[in-house]
Amino acid sequence: MLEGTAGITFALVVALAGVVFVVIQLGRVLGQDAGNQTMQDIAAAIQEGAAAFLRREYTFLAGFVVVVAAIVAVWLDWQTAVSFVLGAFASASAGYLGMFTAVRSNVRTAAAAQKSLNDGLRVAFNSGSIMGMSVVSFSLIGLTVLYFLFDGNISYITGFGFGASSIALFARVGGGIYTKAADVGADLVGKVEQGIPEDDPRNPAVIADNVGDNVGDVAGMGADLFESYSGSIIAAAALGATVAGGVGITLPFIVAAVGIIASLIGTFLVSTKEGATQHDLLATLRRAIYGSSALVLVFTAIVIAITGAGWNLFAVVLVGLLAGNGIGYFTEYYTSYTEKPTQGIAKASETGSATLIIEGLAVGMVSTVAPVLIVAVAIILALGLGGSEAGLYAVALAGVGMLSTLGVTLATDAYGPVADNAGGIAEMSHLPPEVRERTDALDSLGNTTAATGKGFAIGSAVLTALALMAAYIQAAGLKPSDLSLLDPEMIPGLLIGAMLPYLFAALTMTAVGKAAFEIVMEVRRQFKEIPGLMEGTGKPDYKTCVDISTKSALREMVVPGALAVVVPLLVGFVLGKEAVAGMLIGAIASGFVLAVMMANAGGAWDNAKKWIETGVLGGKGSDAHKAAVVGDTVGDPFKDTSGPALNILIKLMSIVSLVFATAFGNGLINF
Amino acid sequence: MLEGTAGITFALVVALAGVVFVVIQLGRVLGQDAGNQTMQDIAAAIQEGAAAFLRREYTFLAGFVVVVAAIVAVWLDWQTAVSFVLGAFASASAGYLGMFTAVRSNVRTAAAAQKSLNDGLRVAFNSGSIMGMSVVSFSLIGLTVLYFLFDGNISYITGFGFGASSIALFARVGGGIYTKAADVGADLVGKVEQGIPEDDPRNPAVIADNVGDNVGDVAGMGADLFESYSGSIIAAAALGATVAGGVGITLPFIVAAVGIIASLIGTFLVSTKEGATQHDLLATLRRAIYGSSALVLVFTAIVIAITGAGWNLFAVVLVGLLAGNGIGYFTEYYTSYTEKPTQGIAKASETGSATLIIEGLAVGMVSTVAPVLIVAVAIILALGLGGSEAGLYAVALAGVGMLSTLGVTLATDAYGPVADNAGGIAEMSHLPPEVRERTDALDSLGNTTAATGKGFAIGSAVLTALALMAAYIQAAGLKPSDLSLLDPEMIPGLLIGAMLPYLFAALTMTAVGKAAFEIVMEVRRQFKEIPGLMEGTGKPDYKTCVDISTKSALREMVVPGALAVVVPLLVGFVLGKEAVAGMLIGAIASGFVLAVMMANAGGAWDNAKKWIETGVLGGKGSDAHKAAVVGDTVGDPFKDTSGPALNILIKLMSIVSLVFATAFGNGLINF
Repeated sequence: MLEGTAGITFALVVALAGVVFVVIQLGRVLGQDAGNQTMQDIAAAIQEGAAAFLRREYTFLAGFVVVVAAIVAVWLDWQTAVSFVLGAFASASAGYLGMFTAVRSNVRTAAAAQKSLNDGLRVAFNSGSIMGMSVVSFSLIGLTVLYFLFDGNISYITGFGFGASSIALFARVGGGIYTKAADVGADLVGKVEQGIPEDDPRNPAVIADNVGDNVGDVAGMGADLFESYSGSIIAAAALGATVAGGVGITLPFIVAAVGIIASLIGTFLVSTKEGATQHDLLATLRRAIYGSSALVLVFTAIVIAITGAGWNLFAVVLVGLLAGNGIGYFTEYYTSYTEKPTQGIAKASETGSATLIIEGLAVGMVSTVAPVLIVAVAIILALGLGGSEAGLYAVALAGVGMLSTLGVTLATDAYGPVADNAGGIAEMSHLPPEVRERTDALDSLGNTTAATGKGFAIGSAVLTALALMAAYIQAAGLKPSDLSLLDPEMIPGLLIGAMLPYLFAALTMTAVGKAAFEIVMEVRRQFKEIPGLMEGTGKPDYKTCVDISTKSALREMVVPGALAVVVPLLVGFVLGKEAVAGMLIGAIASGFVLAVMMANAGGAWDNAKKWIETGVLGGKGSDAHKAAVVGDTVGDPFKDTSGPALNILIKLMSIVSLVFATAFGNGLINF
Repeated sequence: MLEGTAGITFALVVALAGVVFVVIQLGRVLGQDAGNQTMQDIAAAIQEGAAAFLRREYTFLAGFVVVVAAIVAVWLDWQTAVSFVLGAFASASAGYLGMFTAVRSNVRTAAAAQKSLNDGLRVAFNSGSIMGMSVVSFSLIGLTVLYFLFDGNISYITGFGFGASSIALFARVGGGIYTKAADVGADLVGKVEQGIPEDDPRNPAVIADNVGDNVGDVAGMGADLFESYSGSIIAAAALGATVAGGVGITLPFIVAAVGIIASLIGTFLVSTKEGATQHDLLATLRRAIYGSSALVLVFTAIVIAITGAGWNLFAVVLVGLLAGNGIGYFTEYYTSYTEKPTQGIAKASETGSATLIIEGLAVGMVSTVAPVLIVAVAIILALGLGGSEAGLYAVALAGVGMLSTLGVTLATDAYGPVADNAGGIAEMSHLPPEVRERTDALDSLGNTTAATGKGFAIGSAVLTALALMAAYIQAAGLKPSDLSLLDPEMIPGLLIGAMLPYLFAALTMTAVGKAAFEIVMEVRRQFKEIPGLMEGTGKPDYKTCVDISTKSALREMVVPGALAVVVPLLVGFVLGKEAVAGMLIGAIASGFVLAVMMANAGGAWDNAKKWIETGVLGGKGSDAHKAAVVGDTVGDPFKDTSGPALNILIKLMSIVSLVFATAFGNGLINF
């Protein structure tokens, strides 16, 4: 049992149960008290802004999806095109639902925090769990339905990953540009020029800023991990035909399914007591994550016993889970202000912003060592445990293992912006100080989970991209000897691949600057032209700011986005299919380290500033603080735009190569 | 004729002629007027400082060389150990001679600039040409002598490259730390705390700062390129046994030899007229470089015609030459303040130092595109032209071609610090304004040639490292199928390799900070304890500052240096020889882009500041200028320490792997 269609059916049923959970949770969250009229008015503006963003984004996306689907249908086949559309639709739906929930839970979290810390935590976390469960359920439903539709032909199903990647590109790259442009725009004119505080409702960009938090950390992170989750299952299934006596293809689906069950149980472990410290709050989230991880192992052991897939594959799943948690641990170490690296950056501010920047970059660079060694060891162990029969299938399965508890780990991520927004709403609607203390505690917890979430996202992106690359190699019909470093096209491909993350990072960083500039112009215009805006009698035009952020983010992501799709095709058709493999491994290796460096340097600068704001080194307003603000500003596009965007780059390039694998020949240049 | 020993003899004779040129030039330079007593006193202090630095460095080095030579002799064989010692000795001698000349030419350049611009240019350039010619002649003499000594057994001669790499490590990494630590230390206490101008003789660190310019740009750059030059010839010779009917081994020696002749002729093309513009000055240096390049092609054509090596190999040499000049061109484009990228960075200063930092990093990242594409195309062309018979030999030969005119290109580099020092001496000894105008013009030219020189250094390092990697693969007995991306050890090796440049860059960046801190403490102590220092009646203790810079630079380079040697050995013995190949290509690809990014971002920040100092955007003292100073400070370790140190990392790792190739087995971990 569980081989073939039985296993896939099992996965489908579990995924459908996940949807039932989502519906129930949604009902529970929406049934919560939404606070007083002031709170509801502010929340309504954020909801409206989010809706405006999603409307425009999805209009653009719909056109994009239709065009690409048509190209895929003509160039390849209609089945891949159908998968592509479904992948895009499933990812977009999960993102929509997550955003829909988040912008309604923020105000309910603020209201619940009036009662107790635990009530606030429950609402915010339940909101996060809706996003987490939507992502894993929608992905697994899509993949299993396509499996039945195409009779288990995995090569058609790769289109699903391409569709998911396309949405991820828009959500992560476009969203990353949006969130930072709105943030910088709101701060530059509001805080710096007009001298009004953060989250002040008079600031025309304040709603865009709050929308941006959700766009970046809910929709962006969700789509990124939707892509990793789908991609790792697709890659494992594509490589699994000859593995473990026929169970190779279904095993990733089943492991994903038991992961959903484990995550469901894990979400019920989250609760805390009044007066809980940061340590307690972190402990309850860890209980959920580690509890789910333990359950996945128990369930996987049962699956292995039933299917007889081999205990070595159980060990591979374990390796993936450990690697994910290990990377998360080190990400937190390098970016938390209770640890030495971030404190060292803060101390460097005493000799000015230049030394703070240098120290931050150095910490970011050093922080690449641990994740790279963890992934390298995980690959060695997976390959060693899998043996020559499994080959790179084992790496893909380790990726599935790492992501098996995504339902709950993503919940702890998507929880962050809800808590952040709740704090903003509490501030704007002048709730009592103890409420703000509670939302601050929840927000601070969100910053920690965001850091580990980012480490997890890049780690899973690397394993997924490697697995997709392996699937590409198989689909392109490349033999080991074609992939030699001595192959004439391999080294040029590899060098070009290593350079692409730098180009991509540069384009996205400058995009933030350009988009922010447009917001600044608009906010300045409103302060000048709307009578009584500063006095609070005139009403700011939030919508135009949201609209400008959306438009400029979508415009600015076209070039980097096109790059990720066009370059693999160009390399494939000009240099040939061997060069594509070289390019992929070059991009994955270089993108991995650059992404970790940027994300961690950015996170560490952010927290160095926050540490100084707790009163050390002169506290807020000191020269040290001013220097730290420079670091934080440099770090913003690092950690929220360019760094995370590199996850998308390496996966999208890999999936594009996989989808078009059979279309590449030997290239125009031959030796 | 010219096959076998005849070709090697020819190369030896030409290299000896190069030495004759060096001796004659040295006599001419030293015969120049050394200026008035004040000038000579200042120069004497710099000479003393340089001598102190070299004394301490060479004492340390001597011990290092003896120990490593003993290890090599015991572990491998005495022949490789002899080559190692000779390589270290030859590189150190060239560095010593270059430094000896530079710290005597600086004052003579200042004195000659009293007469005319052309006189100043001639003295400074002749000094540079002594360094350029010493490097190529000493390298070629060493290699040819070893060829005769070991009867053409190239595997023994690889030790020469290892020796050269060891010196390069000390000169480039240690020198890079020294120069920036002294610079920052002198500025922080002198300019910022005490308010005395740059190059003020009362500053106890001023001599260390001036010595540092020579240490970094003469000895450091020289040793870096000595290593590339030797490495590319060794790699080509090692791969050449089966190429072009026996001429394969001798051809790189002969091309190097005709390059020396061409460079000798080129050096005589440098002269200018009074009132020459920057454009004229640049034109005369370009005339020398392009003239030499043209001559190399003519001579190589003759060599090909005589030896019958095949015209495809002529084309390969041409490709290398073009690639070197192409990379130099783009480096200048991205870092010159007459061009848009650097002006854009300067303009970003209007919104503060954070946006200037972001823009600089973005420019640095984008600037990796052109060099990577040039190198990728050069490799494709070289491999295509060389054909399957030549294989990666063609890449090595392209590297030899790129470096063939090193005698003159390095002269234009080593000229820079001489002109810079001359300006300092003119300033300190209060020479008339027209003299300072002339030395400023010469200095400014030096900044441009330094930029192109850096691009050239990294381009040649990449080709050399790739060629050494190919030689390693051959020496380790690896077959194409062993080197597949699908090999279990390949991807972990590649990921680790891609991470190493980040670790190396981080270590060298923080090393600068630590060393600078010690200088700051010492300078502060002297201002406090030496009576009358500020008033000019007390004499500063220059020597202690030089000593501290030297000691801390040598101490701080131990960890990064050990890393470059130990990691290849560790990977080789633990993961096996396939993983070493993966690690090398990962490090080369990732190190290439990171080095270009750091060098160009640093150069661009430096020139953005200089552009503002010409009066644009508010000029000196404006907020824009203050922001630009932050960028310049961040850029200092980028462009002068970490960026160039990466050249050494990738070459040293490659040569260590090559030397120990036969000692690596299949590793402790096997599948």
